[in-house]
Amino acid sequence: MTSPNPILIVGSMAFDDLELPSGVFPNTVGGSATYSAFACSALAPARVVAVVGTDFPEALVGSLAARGVDTTGIERAAGKTFRWAGRYDADLCGRTSLDTQLNVFADFRPKIPAAFRSTPLVMLGNIHPALQAEVLDQMDAPKLVVADTMNFWISGEPKTLAALLKRVDVLIINDEEVRELSGVHNIRKAAAAVRALGPKHLIIKRGEHGALLFNDGGIFAVPGFPLENVVDPTGAGDSFAGGLIGYLATQSLDAPLQPSTLRRAMIHGTATASHCVEAVGTSRVATLTSDEVEGRVREISALFAID
Amino acid sequence: MTSPNPILIVGSMAFDDLELPSGVFPNTVGGSATYSAFACSALAPARVVAVVGTDFPEALVGSLAARGVDTTGIERAAGKTFRWAGRYDADLCGRTSLDTQLNVFADFRPKIPAAFRSTPLVMLGNIHPALQAEVLDQMDAPKLVVADTMNFWISGEPKTLAALLKRVDVLIINDEEVRELSGVHNIRKAAAAVRALGPKHLIIKRGEHGALLFNDGGIFAVPGFPLENVVDPTGAGDSFAGGLIGYLATQSLDAPLQPSTLRRAMIHGTATASHCVEAVGTSRVATLTSDEVEGRVREISALFAID
Repeated sequence: MTSPNPILIVGSMAFDDLELPSGVFPNTVGGSATYSAFACSALAPARVVAVVGTDFPEALVGSLAARGVDTTGIERAAGKTFRWAGRYDADLCGRTSLDTQLNVFADFRPKIPAAFRSTPLVMLGNIHPALQAEVLDQMDAPKLVVADTMNFWISGEPKTLAALLKRVDVLIINDEEVRELSGVHNIRKAAAAVRALGPKHLIIKRGEHGALLFNDGGIFAVPGFPLENVVDPTGAGDSFAGGLIGYLATQSLDAPLQPSTLRRAMIHGTATASHCVEAVGTSRVATLTSDEVEGRVREISALFAID
Repeated sequence: MTSPNPILIVGSMAFDDLELPSGVFPNTVGGSATYSAFACSALAPARVVAVVGTDFPEALVGSLAARGVDTTGIERAAGKTFRWAGRYDADLCGRTSLDTQLNVFADFRPKIPAAFRSTPLVMLGNIHPALQAEVLDQMDAPKLVVADTMNFWISGEPKTLAALLKRVDVLIINDEEVRELSGVHNIRKAAAAVRALGPKHLIIKRGEHGALLFNDGGIFAVPGFPLENVVDPTGAGDSFAGGLIGYLATQSLDAPLQPSTLRRAMIHGTATASHCVEAVGTSRVATLTSDEVEGRVREISALFAID
């Protein structure tokens, strides 16, 4: 096996004030880039482009670097780090955003270091689609672009998002977002409509119910892993994306990705996300090993093995 | 392959007044026994014990009989047939019960004809657990008992239901019911608690998200089949049960059921239910063939095949 390909991850780094059924956890380090980078670093080397404020702990950046993540693209700006506060329901299925302070993230314009521009895999976290496009504009010719987005951009920036989607290979969104993006309720028809906008592979996240993959290989359904203890769902989607792209980075990128490769990547994403939610914040993904990912991959595969 | 074993089905036969996004369908023939019998008759011979009123169409009974269903246990009582009225949400995910008239079903006491008492498989539809027990009391020694129940009996008849569960091999309920029955929210812990009450095999229905099976073989997750057109979810659970027990009836019952046999049965149940919801009422299951079930089984199996 050859060494895994490097992955460029662009997204947010943040402080989250979490109100969970198990307690209140203020100032928890979060953000899409943080979760994705920790998650994928179990499988492949990541390079992060993000912005933090002067209040962000250097030790956290150090713990990313200690896992082989290239943190030289993390800009430290004058001001405070992006902050989000949320309260989860008792059953952890729903959550309410209590507060969002963009802080230094408000003026974030991703600058891709020269050494990062030839990175073959790119993970575009959920930021303004114009910024996602700016990232791609700075890259040489990535072999695979994975992107996340959300309702806020789907309704607020439809044209910018539509232009971006033509440049995306794998789009990862949830049920509601695929319905809003397509204007179609039926999930199968909605998926076909979204794929017609550009992404060859569409992944629909369904929380505890797992995820669906739509591509030329048909439909693939990976179940959620039924855990005995779910502690904190924050970052599950970003960890899913990190595990997914981390697995893809271990595969050859010289030919178009096979549907079966994406199917295996889906299981790796699910395995990674299932670890993430077992502890508060990034504490679990920050120490996740490839053996632990592969162990959970086997448990998930057993969920749909007949014999 | 030997001939399939016969299946005794006890449950309701009814008229449903359905308000669907596609239109209003009054006087639609329904009921748990009707759906399960039509569904399982694609795979194995069913024997029905139920009660209808003088208003129930003889032609419908004839169409069951034409599919090899033994209808001699369907009692015709003076009065009106059980009637339910419901309105579905625009997305077909939720529904509101508008009216329930028990009518002749209020005094239903299942009488198992002598010729039915040695039937090896028994499907106990969702009726009072005391009546479900009366059915088993009248049977010689069924090799497999499958049962459904609901929140109404879980909260209202906990002791009677607990006694019944000790006699049930396969219990089929939904997420909310397994949580209420166990008093535990986490689905994995709740499943273990319910299995400790008696059922060796617990199936948790999750609507469009598929179903989970918990038994000594571990956990099996079958995805819902993403349909292009869902018309009427009424009877999906009863059709699932019919397809499941219909498949089990084709297997040897001389040894304890293998976990893998239950896994295949889950896929057959899902296949059958996915056909059911493609048309109003029982119209689709009433003509369902084993080839159509097996075709959908292959489509569902492809949803979780890696290569």
